[in-house]
Amino acid sequence: MADIATRVWNHRWKIDPIVRSLIDTDFYKLLMCQSVFRNKPDTAVTFSLINRTKSIPLAKMIDEGELREQLDHVRSLSLTRGESTWLRGNTFYGRRQMFRSDFMEWFENLRLPAYHLEKRNDQYELTFEGAWPEVMLWEIPALAILMELRGRAVLDTLGRFELQVLYARAMTKLWEKITALRDLDGLRIADFGTRRRHSFLWQDWCVQAMVEGLGPKFTGTSNCLIAMRQDLEAVGTNAHELPMVYSALAVGDDALRRAPYDVLADWHEEHSGNLRIILPDTYGTKGFLENAPDWLAGWTGIRIDSGDPATGAETAIDWWRSRGEDPMEKLVIFSDGLDVEKIEELHRQFAGRVRVSFGWGTLLTNDFRGLVEDDALAPFSLVCKAVSADGRPTVKLSDNPEKAMGPAAEVERYKRVFGVGEQVRMEVVV
Amino acid sequence: MADIATRVWNHRWKIDPIVRSLIDTDFYKLLMCQSVFRNKPDTAVTFSLINRTKSIPLAKMIDEGELREQLDHVRSLSLTRGESTWLRGNTFYGRRQMFRSDFMEWFENLRLPAYHLEKRNDQYELTFEGAWPEVMLWEIPALAILMELRGRAVLDTLGRFELQVLYARAMTKLWEKITALRDLDGLRIADFGTRRRHSFLWQDWCVQAMVEGLGPKFTGTSNCLIAMRQDLEAVGTNAHELPMVYSALAVGDDALRRAPYDVLADWHEEHSGNLRIILPDTYGTKGFLENAPDWLAGWTGIRIDSGDPATGAETAIDWWRSRGEDPMEKLVIFSDGLDVEKIEELHRQFAGRVRVSFGWGTLLTNDFRGLVEDDALAPFSLVCKAVSADGRPTVKLSDNPEKAMGPAAEVERYKRVFGVGEQVRMEVVV
Repeated sequence: MADIATRVWNHRWKIDPIVRSLIDTDFYKLLMCQSVFRNKPDTAVTFSLINRTKSIPLAKMIDEGELREQLDHVRSLSLTRGESTWLRGNTFYGRRQMFRSDFMEWFENLRLPAYHLEKRNDQYELTFEGAWPEVMLWEIPALAILMELRGRAVLDTLGRFELQVLYARAMTKLWEKITALRDLDGLRIADFGTRRRHSFLWQDWCVQAMVEGLGPKFTGTSNCLIAMRQDLEAVGTNAHELPMVYSALAVGDDALRRAPYDVLADWHEEHSGNLRIILPDTYGTKGFLENAPDWLAGWTGIRIDSGDPATGAETAIDWWRSRGEDPMEKLVIFSDGLDVEKIEELHRQFAGRVRVSFGWGTLLTNDFRGLVEDDALAPFSLVCKAVSADGRPTVKLSDNPEKAMGPAAEVERYKRVFGVGEQVRMEVVV
Repeated sequence: MADIATRVWNHRWKIDPIVRSLIDTDFYKLLMCQSVFRNKPDTAVTFSLINRTKSIPLAKMIDEGELREQLDHVRSLSLTRGESTWLRGNTFYGRRQMFRSDFMEWFENLRLPAYHLEKRNDQYELTFEGAWPEVMLWEIPALAILMELRGRAVLDTLGRFELQVLYARAMTKLWEKITALRDLDGLRIADFGTRRRHSFLWQDWCVQAMVEGLGPKFTGTSNCLIAMRQDLEAVGTNAHELPMVYSALAVGDDALRRAPYDVLADWHEEHSGNLRIILPDTYGTKGFLENAPDWLAGWTGIRIDSGDPATGAETAIDWWRSRGEDPMEKLVIFSDGLDVEKIEELHRQFAGRVRVSFGWGTLLTNDFRGLVEDDALAPFSLVCKAVSADGRPTVKLSDNPEKAMGPAAEVERYKRVFGVGEQVRMEVVV
């Protein structure tokens, strides 16, 4: 029997919102936000959306009015009472009251700041300016909105059964991945796919399929809303924006050289255990580890997010040994461009030598490759990054020059300061 | 928002009925039923369920209580006012009032007669006895119930996402078939898959997918309920039970030899145009056509339901030519064990030489081959046939000895009377 009221209600929708909650975001954003709120609340930053895949003309595919409606909708959101209760009352990484009262009060009153949107050629210029703790929360919803609007533009052309078969194929594809992963003894894998997901509902489906298909091998999701609703672990630690902004704020080469460690010193004070995960690649993994203070070798693990992942992990293992640490007690989290074959390969190579974990992103939550004509739903490389802090440009080098960002002169200066030599170029798929 | 009343209602279900309507059956059953109601209303027949695939132990897989509940549910059904209106008011094969008032009045008051159910070894013996027009209507629901209960026994072992992925895979599989068929110029194909379908909802999905995917190349469904609900053509003409019962009733070899033509003489009086389709294989196609009266060559077409289909069609073409008919004006309907490759092959061979049409059955509505462990959902060969009429056994020879039925002595007699020589054995899949 049709529920008439529901049907009438549905027909009154003005838009179908892509992001419906302020915690429909990555857990590490909230952790970092609290850290920034405490340590650098007044830093003025600019975040900017960058489509690395120029062949996809987002401004031609996505209606500007629709994009504005979706962004405006996010600005209308505020933390609900239930969301606040969950953040305040839940145990994250084994710790109660991870989020302090002063941060939660601020967050409860937050609305996301204004955005600036312009078309340039066939791309959108979308930027966010303001206080760092506010602006940084735009990254994930902005990416999710652009990714999904591009998907909707493609889906609009399909018939009803074509649509159903499209999702049938995508489900089958994911399930085949899950059944392959099931065979890996001791696997630990989490969902890191919020930002470039196909859609919220699809991510939610993927996560639930992982729960049923992998059981305890599935360790959680980075998406707070899904973690809350499905009663799962919310996972994630920190990202490049911390060292990038700290480094931009540093005056002089000596301060710059220290900045990436200053970030982790602040983090060290706030977090323990599995939240002490080094992200070493912002200005080159090798130099970062060589010059790291000894207390950093005592951290729980490392996240490998660019460059050849096996090389990165071997570098970390060597480094731990050189500092007298036992790699068997250390955690290596792989999170860059993963799909099943790469996961299997890395698991084979490192299981038993270190504790291994995977943060599976875009090819978990948005693998529609090969499912429509011209591969029009293939994921692409969209990022939203801090590009300046207090008026000074940010720089990212990473272990793959294809992922480098920042003004050329500053990139050269950073390379010199951090002693980064030749790097291997690797194609960035997602 | 959950519809609370609906949910409470759902939880009060005692069973999930497999057959929910007396017109959830093949259209030709109703056509034949009307013919029998007019010409042989008092003939006492026995129909019996036969599982040709002995390796599937139905009585071990299916709970007897559940089977009885489903069969009892069918006995509780009667024609609804809307169904009656549709049968009375609709145009079938271009003709209004296909079903006469006396038949409709009888049908409106019909409840299906009792069944006899016993377990023998690992199979069910399920028989129906009584007046032919009543008993014959058990065939399709009995088959659909057994097929679906066997499927449910397998589905009960699957998790929620395994189930969803199972249907995702089945949808993808069917859609790939449909997109392949879409390329065949001038294709005409209908759904004949009610009796051995996976389930009603699945058949309904398959039919709707055919509508979207094939457009006018999809010519209708044999299922009256789906035809009514989806506003499609209900299609089908007649089946082996007519000549089988007429032949069983015939006293002496001469009468037996005439019986298959007597059936069609009755049919000739009642139907014209596209309903004048010869089903020649009951006692061997070759002999049937050679000995046929000339008026039969004037019929619209032929249905090829056993033996090698290309051979059968060539035989028919030669026969039409020998009787001075133009094969280009004749219709050949293929309906035996079809799947895409066979359809493509037959279409290639016969399109342009005769009018070609396909009645696609089990591998349209129940192709779950390869989708679960041990292929436990693969369709199998279950039939429900008239085994006696007025106490005399029926016989079917067909063009494939694997499909032959009846007491050995009677089979030999029929072979002699109808001059059936060597026949090619072909595996019966469904």
